[in-house]
Amino acid sequence: MREAFHEELDLITKHLQKMALLVKSATAEATTALLTADLSLAESVIAQDDVIDQMQHELDDKTMQLLATQQPVASDLRVLVTSLRMSADLERMGDMAHHIAKLARMRHPATAVPPEASLTIEEMGRVAGIIIEKLAQIIVSRDIQAAQQLAIDDDEMDKLHRKLIQTLISKDWPYSAESAIDLTLLGRYYERAADHAVSISRRVYYLVTGKYQDSKG
Amino acid sequence: MREAFHEELDLITKHLQKMALLVKSATAEATTALLTADLSLAESVIAQDDVIDQMQHELDDKTMQLLATQQPVASDLRVLVTSLRMSADLERMGDMAHHIAKLARMRHPATAVPPEASLTIEEMGRVAGIIIEKLAQIIVSRDIQAAQQLAIDDDEMDKLHRKLIQTLISKDWPYSAESAIDLTLLGRYYERAADHAVSISRRVYYLVTGKYQDSKG
Repeated sequence: MREAFHEELDLITKHLQKMALLVKSATAEATTALLTADLSLAESVIAQDDVIDQMQHELDDKTMQLLATQQPVASDLRVLVTSLRMSADLERMGDMAHHIAKLARMRHPATAVPPEASLTIEEMGRVAGIIIEKLAQIIVSRDIQAAQQLAIDDDEMDKLHRKLIQTLISKDWPYSAESAIDLTLLGRYYERAADHAVSISRRVYYLVTGKYQDSKG
Repeated sequence: MREAFHEELDLITKHLQKMALLVKSATAEATTALLTADLSLAESVIAQDDVIDQMQHELDDKTMQLLATQQPVASDLRVLVTSLRMSADLERMGDMAHHIAKLARMRHPATAVPPEASLTIEEMGRVAGIIIEKLAQIIVSRDIQAAQQLAIDDDEMDKLHRKLIQTLISKDWPYSAESAIDLTLLGRYYERAADHAVSISRRVYYLVTGKYQDSKG
């Protein structure tokens, strides 16, 4: 009976990892769609968001069912409660890819990203990919050190974010306010996706130790 | 024994309401600090965010303790799980007030909001106040109809957000890209705070019915 329960817990963890990998590919595709003004790729990312949302619902239903029927305590309880929170963060990361793809679609056939900013956005997409890839592994490995190190990759994202804003406010930025708005929002989407990943890595710390890791605020 | 447990559940609900009211005053004060370039008020909101974060930790610890010791099922289980999610949304709403106050502080002694946009920002602050006030009541009353109607107030916020963006992209907007960035972020903070409130109202629906309310995506 308990063995079957632990198999169910493992399934939940695998489901979370699968969700993270789906978010990773959605983010990568959204970035490509954005930088290449690829309408059909943008549409595909937008459609895919429902799949991520549906995964969250199924995962949460399963988690609630186990909470209700298995009356878990200690680390088993933490696995289930943490799963509810991770799924919410992952769903939100999926929303960020969705937002990026929607902006790509809105500006098509033009691109929302002028040449002066495209390298920075490309880098933000690349760093997001690295962070989410690591996260997918950490969800399964529960490696606390790797979880804590994710904050370092997030610092890289924050640097890119500041660089993007610097580009926008430089005197020779020749584009419209609309373009500044687009890039401000895009910068925020990537930064938030990385923040959610860090938030999930903190939940791994809690899951393993039962303690809260200090937040950077 | 069960009676004591239900008293504990009521306490959790009251704690969530208290958290919502704290978020409401933080948002109102952040808006005032922003519009009047009031540095000490901004500092006070920034300091207050730790109190909101601490409330979330205490609430979550209590919730976990009840999950572990009371082995709740059905609606009692939903109250506890929903509490974990509401506290996360409320904490995030507190972060929005914190972000607004930080922007006010960064631009002090100037104001981040030029006269052309100040009425719209003031309105966004006012609508946020109404939404969070209603939310605080809904958390306790669990009135599903009121919960569903919160989406209408959120539509008002979305309208104001679009109006703000329209102002920024109009041909006679005389301010810098930096100002456009500030206002884009501010618009997003208010809009996100309202979105989190709607998200909490959906959790009330789930709490009462055990079913998910359709998301607007």
